[in-house]
Amino acid sequence: MRVMGVDPGLTRCGLSLIEGGAGRSVIALDVDVVRTPADMDLAQRLLRIAEAAEYWLDTHRPDVVAIERVFAQHNVRTAMGTAQAGGVIALAAARRGIDVCFHTPSEVKAAVTGNGSADKAQVTAMVMRILGLQTAPTPADAADALALGICHCWRAPMIARMAQAEAMAAEQKRKYEARLAEERKTRAAAAKKLDSATKLKARKEAGAR
Amino acid sequence: MRVMGVDPGLTRCGLSLIEGGAGRSVIALDVDVVRTPADMDLAQRLLRIAEAAEYWLDTHRPDVVAIERVFAQHNVRTAMGTAQAGGVIALAAARRGIDVCFHTPSEVKAAVTGNGSADKAQVTAMVMRILGLQTAPTPADAADALALGICHCWRAPMIARMAQAEAMAAEQKRKYEARLAEERKTRAAAAKKLDSATKLKARKEAGAR
Repeated sequence: MRVMGVDPGLTRCGLSLIEGGAGRSVIALDVDVVRTPADMDLAQRLLRIAEAAEYWLDTHRPDVVAIERVFAQHNVRTAMGTAQAGGVIALAAARRGIDVCFHTPSEVKAAVTGNGSADKAQVTAMVMRILGLQTAPTPADAADALALGICHCWRAPMIARMAQAEAMAAEQKRKYEARLAEERKTRAAAAKKLDSATKLKARKEAGAR
Repeated sequence: MRVMGVDPGLTRCGLSLIEGGAGRSVIALDVDVVRTPADMDLAQRLLRIAEAAEYWLDTHRPDVVAIERVFAQHNVRTAMGTAQAGGVIALAAARRGIDVCFHTPSEVKAAVTGNGSADKAQVTAMVMRILGLQTAPTPADAADALALGICHCWRAPMIARMAQAEAMAAEQKRKYEARLAEERKTRAAAAKKLDSATKLKARKEAGAR
């Protein structure tokens, strides 16, 4: 499975390409950081990021795009920009029929380091060890994008199993509700029959009197 | 000036088209609300919104797109979705070379009602009065999109003047700094000349002794 990992951002947007093999084997195929100047128009910055992401999608043809889910950050303005950068990349993938999956920062950290609240240095160290890198990927956004890709490769089977289990549970619930509705209908029909029988009997008795 | 007003959102995204004439005259040409189901995939929702916005841009060919700037909301998840919806519309406009302008909710309220903290009912009432509508536009997102368009028509001359003033100030600052640098250079040269003259005099005195 070929995964494009995205650490979204307006100033620096990390992009990575990870090939996931059997078990936990993962290989880094590419990594890059797209930068846009802070004094540039927001729409132009989004355009530049979208164009870079589209070039990656068309060149590398990933099976899935894994993007970091943005949560509230100390700086709301930054968080909004981050969400928008992730949004335009998700859109580019959707246009090409490529699945998009979002992972929270703690899911990524937990997958890569085993600790959902690991710091940046720990994540970078584990990314280096997992991918067999000689030097630390810089800037941190590159390491984060690689971590996203690894996280998706490792979580994907679990996510698929979860989806299957949920679909099965939904199917069972649907069947149960259908049976329940059927039973209610049968009971209602029986009650109506009983009711009309009672009425008939009452009428007969009234007639007999 | 033809303005496309956008009240961004994933569940409901308001789109409007306002034609601004001389002075404060504004006419509503179109208004619509794009809806996407909450249980739909995020990337697919963004795709649907982007496609609707692109259809509008290509059909109506506005001169500028005015989008509400998203701030922190009580619900962070909603705020992120709203930011992403606005982002993909800004991207669609940027791709077509159409200017994008963001206005904060209080700028919109202040422009339309004269009160930056007006409530939804006041905004709707003023939008109806300004545009001469017989019935209130529903849902609220439609009214908000119209308000955005009106706000841009009325603020645009002021924004243009502000930009002009800023450019002029920047130009003056640049000129002043250039003159300052020039002056410093002249003074440094003069000081150097004086310095070498002093040294020459000292050497001559030493020779005379």
